Amino acid sequence: MNQRLWTFAGGKHGQFSIDSVTAVRGEPLPTAPRLDVTQRADRPRDATYVLRGVVSNERYVNRGEKGLLVSKQEALGRAEATCSVLIPIKKSEAWWGLSQDERRAIFEDQSNHIALGMKALPQVARRLHHCRDLGEDAPFDFLTWFDFQPRESAIFDDLLGALRTTEEWQFVEREVEIRVTREPGTSSK
Amino acid sequence: MNQRLWTFAGGKHGQFSIDSVTAVRGEPLPTAPRLDVTQRADRPRDATYVLRGVVSNERYVNRGEKGLLVSKQEALGRAEATCSVLIPIKKSEAWWGLSQDERRAIFEDQSNHIALGMKALPQVARRLHHCRDLGEDAPFDFLTWFDFQPRESAIFDDLLGALRTTEEWQFVEREVEIRVTREPGTSSK
Repeated sequence: MNQRLWTFAGGKHGQFSIDSVTAVRGEPLPTAPRLDVTQRADRPRDATYVLRGVVSNERYVNRGEKGLLVSKQEALGRAEATCSVLIPIKKSEAWWGLSQDERRAIFEDQSNHIALGMKALPQVARRLHHCRDLGEDAPFDFLTWFDFQPRESAIFDDLLGALRTTEEWQFVEREVEIRVTREPGTSSK
Repeated sequence: MNQRLWTFAGGKHGQFSIDSVTAVRGEPLPTAPRLDVTQRADRPRDATYVLRGVVSNERYVNRGEKGLLVSKQEALGRAEATCSVLIPIKKSEAWWGLSQDERRAIFEDQSNHIALGMKALPQVARRLHHCRDLGEDAPFDFLTWFDFQPRESAIFDDLLGALRTTEEWQFVEREVEIRVTREPGTSSK
């Protein structure tokens, strides 16, 4: 198993209670009562759906941006960060056919993706998982997993709203938003 | 199955006869008489070793370079290109910890990776496969697959020699070179 592989399974089990599932663009995902987030090697058999992705190297961030991000960002799983959101995204073939400099120009110069994310730090923590280069047939290209305290949810909503108006989001073919809650005092592990 | 997934299996079967296996850096791979190159979904059971990788988007090439590459490069599998070479490579954690601009600077500004590859066009055809973000535990980060006519092998050898002296290659932890031959008149498919 790839040690950087994470599995998100919607079904009857899991640390998180699913509050809402919104199909932002394209096909929805089924509803389920719980979300299970693990680094397990096998695919949970009794899940309604299973999404998997790998934490990888950064694709766009430059040295200066990386230094700023590292200095401001917090780790996932803080005790009071009981709100989590999973956002699976699929981008278009047009996006993947662009060269690196073209994608970077859209991502940051035109869309301020990194700068927008920076504005939500340190309140919103995140981890990005890549699915496009898994050997398996993956329905999404990315899974982004966020957490924050309930009282900081406006900061997260603003980030989401701003990103969805960007040039980069013109290349998003499918997006689902899964909002979940962890009972305070329980572990996210 | 990911439609961009390719499987390279060393063993008793396959379109290619293995001429040599050289451990350029780090651990070797076992010897085997044949190499099988397919887009099969399952792992061949009777193989001595199985390497898998996914064709993905370009990570460093800019628009101008991409235009030049596309205008000069040939497809794999030309009738007379009976010499093929598979080069599996693993890079260090130091490489993967660099930011995008740092990797691009080493890759092209300091190491001329794209420019060196361009000099071998159109004689040497190639396809790059990514293994680092497979869900499975992959022993290499990249598999590059080349083919050329026997009389053009000096062009390929020069490319390989030049790449191995670059700054980028300081980050290569493991490299194996598998030289194979296809009988003229047989298909590489």
